Amino acid sequence: MATIHPSTDFRSDTVTWPTPAMVEAMATAELGDDVYGEDPTVNELETLAASLLGKAAGLFVTSGTQGNLIAALTHAQRGDEAILGEDAHTFCWEAGGIAVLGGITTRPLPTDSRGRMAVDQIKAAIRSDNPHLPHSRLVLLENSSGGNHGAAIEPEYFAAVSAVAQAHDLKIHLDGARLFNAATALGIDPTAITTQVDSVSICLSKGLCAPVGSMLLGSEEFIHQARRHRKLLGGGMRQAGGLAAAGIIALKTMTQRLQADHDNALALALGLATIPGIKLDPQVVETNMVFFDLENDLNLAPEQLIKTLKIDYGLYIGGYGDRTLRAVTHYWIEPSQVDRLVEAIRAIVALHPTPGYT
Amino acid sequence: MATIHPSTDFRSDTVTWPTPAMVEAMATAELGDDVYGEDPTVNELETLAASLLGKAAGLFVTSGTQGNLIAALTHAQRGDEAILGEDAHTFCWEAGGIAVLGGITTRPLPTDSRGRMAVDQIKAAIRSDNPHLPHSRLVLLENSSGGNHGAAIEPEYFAAVSAVAQAHDLKIHLDGARLFNAATALGIDPTAITTQVDSVSICLSKGLCAPVGSMLLGSEEFIHQARRHRKLLGGGMRQAGGLAAAGIIALKTMTQRLQADHDNALALALGLATIPGIKLDPQVVETNMVFFDLENDLNLAPEQLIKTLKIDYGLYIGGYGDRTLRAVTHYWIEPSQVDRLVEAIRAIVALHPTPGYT
Amino acid sequence: MATIHPSTDFRSDTVTWPTPAMVEAMATAELGDDVYGEDPTVNELETLAASLLGKAAGLFVTSGTQGNLIAALTHAQRGDEAILGEDAHTFCWEAGGIAVLGGITTRPLPTDSRGRMAVDQIKAAIRSDNPHLPHSRLVLLENSSGGNHGAAIEPEYFAAVSAVAQAHDLKIHLDGARLFNAATALGIDPTAITTQVDSVSICLSKGLCAPVGSMLLGSEEFIHQARRHRKLLGGGMRQAGGLAAAGIIALKTMTQRLQADHDNALALALGLATIPGIKLDPQVVETNMVFFDLENDLNLAPEQLIKTLKIDYGLYIGGYGDRTLRAVTHYWIEPSQVDRLVEAIRAIVALHPTPGYT
Amino acid sequence: MATIHPSTDFRSDTVTWPTPAMVEAMATAELGDDVYGEDPTVNELETLAASLLGKAAGLFVTSGTQGNLIAALTHAQRGDEAILGEDAHTFCWEAGGIAVLGGITTRPLPTDSRGRMAVDQIKAAIRSDNPHLPHSRLVLLENSSGGNHGAAIEPEYFAAVSAVAQAHDLKIHLDGARLFNAATALGIDPTAITTQVDSVSICLSKGLCAPVGSMLLGSEEFIHQARRHRKLLGGGMRQAGGLAAAGIIALKTMTQRLQADHDNALALALGLATIPGIKLDPQVVETNMVFFDLENDLNLAPEQLIKTLKIDYGLYIGGYGDRTLRAVTHYWIEPSQVDRLVEAIRAIVALHPTPGYT
Repeated sequence: MATIHPSTDFRSDTVTWPTPAMVEAMATAELGDDVYGEDPTVNELETLAASLLGKAAGLFVTSGTQGNLIAALTHAQRGDEAILGEDAHTFCWEAGGIAVLGGITTRPLPTDSRGRMAVDQIKAAIRSDNPHLPHSRLVLLENSSGGNHGAAIEPEYFAAVSAVAQAHDLKIHLDGARLFNAATALGIDPTAITTQVDSVSICLSKGLCAPVGSMLLGSEEFIHQARRHRKLLGGGMRQAGGLAAAGIIALKTMTQRLQADHDNALALALGLATIPGIKLDPQVVETNMVFFDLENDLNLAPEQLIKTLKIDYGLYIGGYGDRTLRAVTHYWIEPSQVDRLVEAIRAIVALHPTPGYT
Repeated sequence: MATIHPSTDFRSDTVTWPTPAMVEAMATAELGDDVYGEDPTVNELETLAASLLGKAAGLFVTSGTQGNLIAALTHAQRGDEAILGEDAHTFCWEAGGIAVLGGITTRPLPTDSRGRMAVDQIKAAIRSDNPHLPHSRLVLLENSSGGNHGAAIEPEYFAAVSAVAQAHDLKIHLDGARLFNAATALGIDPTAITTQVDSVSICLSKGLCAPVGSMLLGSEEFIHQARRHRKLLGGGMRQAGGLAAAGIIALKTMTQRLQADHDNALALALGLATIPGIKLDPQVVETNMVFFDLENDLNLAPEQLIKTLKIDYGLYIGGYGDRTLRAVTHYWIEPSQVDRLVEAIRAIVALHPTPGYT
Repeated sequence: MATIHPSTDFRSDTVTWPTPAMVEAMATAELGDDVYGEDPTVNELETLAASLLGKAAGLFVTSGTQGNLIAALTHAQRGDEAILGEDAHTFCWEAGGIAVLGGITTRPLPTDSRGRMAVDQIKAAIRSDNPHLPHSRLVLLENSSGGNHGAAIEPEYFAAVSAVAQAHDLKIHLDGARLFNAATALGIDPTAITTQVDSVSICLSKGLCAPVGSMLLGSEEFIHQARRHRKLLGGGMRQAGGLAAAGIIALKTMTQRLQADHDNALALALGLATIPGIKLDPQVVETNMVFFDLENDLNLAPEQLIKTLKIDYGLYIGGYGDRTLRAVTHYWIEPSQVDRLVEAIRAIVALHPTPGYT
Repeated sequence: MATIHPSTDFRSDTVTWPTPAMVEAMATAELGDDVYGEDPTVNELETLAASLLGKAAGLFVTSGTQGNLIAALTHAQRGDEAILGEDAHTFCWEAGGIAVLGGITTRPLPTDSRGRMAVDQIKAAIRSDNPHLPHSRLVLLENSSGGNHGAAIEPEYFAAVSAVAQAHDLKIHLDGARLFNAATALGIDPTAITTQVDSVSICLSKGLCAPVGSMLLGSEEFIHQARRHRKLLGGGMRQAGGLAAAGIIALKTMTQRLQADHDNALALALGLATIPGIKLDPQVVETNMVFFDLENDLNLAPEQLIKTLKIDYGLYIGGYGDRTLRAVTHYWIEPSQVDRLVEAIRAIVALHPTPGYT
């Protein structure tokens, strides 16, 4: 299998390679045994991330899934219930770990087209103290919403959910895998959001380009307990300073350049919208994700489009259900590649003439 | 607290006392240590129930919740997923035990007004073999549907779900807490339904009047494993023959008389429908449950109605959310009490004159 | 399978049938729906048991295993650790439920010949706050010790363990399945022991003859949470008043007569000790259990002895590992049957002449 | 906190930094998204490790704890039981994860002075099919034995355990965190051991010097399921190729040089044995670990020795219980440092003159 270069890869921002500056930093990072708490670069990263996100303490974890799982294990106990969006990553794409490993029931609620549960439905879902019922304990939110075009949810929503949660003694964890994308799109500091929640996880390895790892942030006591849970999951890493060095650059530098990815995503959406047989609304593109559909009567299967792009153009996009496709922009995607992708799709569609689109 | 006589108690059919024949049988039942498999009356009950429901073997368990939990633990393993209706008893009213104790994720799907998930949505919910996803393993159904006016779901629906389940190697467990009510309403033998599922639980202690207990039925191997899980839950009972003797009468006799309860429920619904300010559609009454609403502009709170019925009339009904109330008929409820309840509610409503209803 | 009458059955005190007074009380008990908290007889039993055992509140549960499991689930959370004897019932005979369902690790410690862990070993087993280690939370004790000849452990031991537990913020749960046997043997009120522990379960269905059920006792808050866990396990029973009526007699009457069973057990032990080839020390018989061994060079297998007793004499005893057998006395065992059992074993051994024993 | 250089750090072999060759390889490794299975360096590492250890497939995981946990989750299900040594790392130092997260009960058995459970005790611990008992499913072994001076267990032991396991349909997982140390000490290829077990985990990050990571090896189907469980734990890493590049060097090069560490450990032990007041038997040093005790009447506390070594000599050793200390050799420890450590300890002991040692 040939390696796919990230400059051609729109499948996800998870495919990003570390930047040259990261590679350099990783090779020269100060190291130590982080299980003993002695890796200075990891310690620096944890302090930095906590500071940037307005929390007292931080923990370097292997993945966003692990950060979210540790947060749930730490906030909630066996028999508690977590309220979350029915299309949330934590409900759909994390193997059910919260329930499977944590004995925490999951209560999925419908979301609007931007991934938001209705605040009054959250309130209505909170249980009374009745032996027939689990104990409502946790609300899981996500920003940007990966299941909803990467929508960037505004701080006011978090404030509204926070008011309900505090009134009923629930905790809020934010899956902020792409929180910096959301903050960039909203033109705000991420702390405008994170101060509304009890804990937040962010991914260093998606749009921020670090090779591996996520951060979990919260109070001192929360992180103390989270560290126990990281050990329980076998998530402790020894000389993780190299990875952490990349993470420091991710937080300091890469968070500042995400608008370029959003601009590219919008350009991509506007370009695709000009192709007959492709259905999308560029207005829903808020961050770095472009979802589009092949019209039902277009004589082209999504798998065929993916395959032709790969073989004839060396370009990669992702399938996402029935006739939906996804293209994600990131550091390695240049505007010229966006243009190439639009024109490649236009050409492939043109090769499949369809009544009504010709 | 004064004891409530079941002849005045419409809150649920769980309030039924054992019949005189049961009390007699319980006092004279042959006994043994059922944990050793030596209680002859329990053994007779298990054989009888299996036979009546078309299964190879049976297990006497403490409650319907326990029967459903044991079924899930036996069919599914840690990391598996159960598909179930979002208003199913197993999802809403069993403290999340399937997830909390079993490590089985629950995937609630919308249901129609009779408690049925759409068959194609069940099919669409079945997961591919992907490390990000739990392993689809189990479909949980319910009949009659307690969360939907006690709707009696027809065998064809079970056949359709069974076809999907078999095609994808899923098991089906039926929460048949009130299966005999459903079968009576449909005018069929319950095996027309139970032969479509892998396991079924039925309650002896609801409309069938036994004081305690439910049956879990399935294959020999399933029941062998279920017995292990009953022990794990501490559900083994020693000299349970007395309870089993009541269960035998429940299955032999009480299953034959449920039409009377349904007739009473319909009469109750028709009576209530004549009261201004009470909202219900008697056509949705299929078995022994009557749900009705107080119109929003009726100047009477549900709690007030419940309290006045209790204090002034010695009658008991149940609240069920916002402005919804529930009355359930059973063995101890005579037609005359149905009439009394209708007239009592009519009188109480009349004491709260409301513009538009006078 | 013919029913085994308990007057011939020394296998366990679990085989006891309810007494005539119990049968009478069960048939006339006041009933209600205990899941609604409305069964007056259950309520009376819970109040009585709490009072007798010096606790604020009580809960009627299906079995001793369920009582112990609920106690562990209530005291300890996912990731906590329970310290317990390596031959404790909770470790050996309850299907591992504490770990399997509760996510509570079990830390078995060696016990002395009377089932007591060394207090300093308990202390040494308590963990420091280290992410590599589970959180020590619970000590599980047992009295009398079923795995050690039914030894009756003295209150001083509980006081010593309690001092350690309190100093380290651990809870103590006592598996008191046969606590009244222990108290009788020690000539003390059981509260001399139960006031040293946070919660206690006792069995109504062993030597106390009730057909089904155990009691779990503790603080108001503990029992409130325990009730949630009972529901989670499906342990709620509806019209349980009949069973509770037997339980009330068990507590009021049957607890007063256990010395007779102990006298019978001692007589049995002294009789067996006179048979060549039978090895036991009558001094270890403290309550109602007699364990004895067949000498290695006796030409008689334990299974053969059990089978011959059953077929030729209609008497039942239990096997318990390699060449060990167990006979337990209870309400239904008369002194004359004890004599019959001794003579039957003497005769069977005599039929298997063995060099050295003739 | 100043960084501790590994050339002065005898606390553990976990403190090793990557070698210069590793640092070089990490900076130039080919990368891809390993969650998509597309990181070529990770794929190469997995294939290499499987081949070296005689297994069909391999999985790169974050830590040894995670490898062991995934193995247990994959081999055993909720309600199964794992038999393991009472001083095994999996029982003592992994936060109880097997029970806590997996619902697998742990059955610790005594071990001999080299960490071996008696084979006949393993056999005796296997359960019959009885609802009171968990289902025996897994044996966990460890080599070298970290809790027993790093003893290198010979292949014959694994063959004997394997015979028992196969006869009873149990799986064996080997915690081979330091398996290459054991193989080096025994002068054998590690496959002489790994072919006797169903799965094995090895650490790249201890004596083999890679910064992060362990390998889990087993059959194709086992690794397929293990990959699911890695995702469940959030253990998936994206561009892990850099870490994998270090792992490849660890396996190819570092496994060949462990005899030097063992020679250093023996030299250290022989040196320490000449110091009055230090108690150890150099004969038990089989690999790279030296445990030694301070005599009870030596007027020096272990904490004081550790602190003085650190402050006055810049040398680090580990405390390990009461009066026991541990020093571990590895790649970064030169013979000259071994000599320095011996002489430093000799000098410190001499400063605490003790009657009987002067």
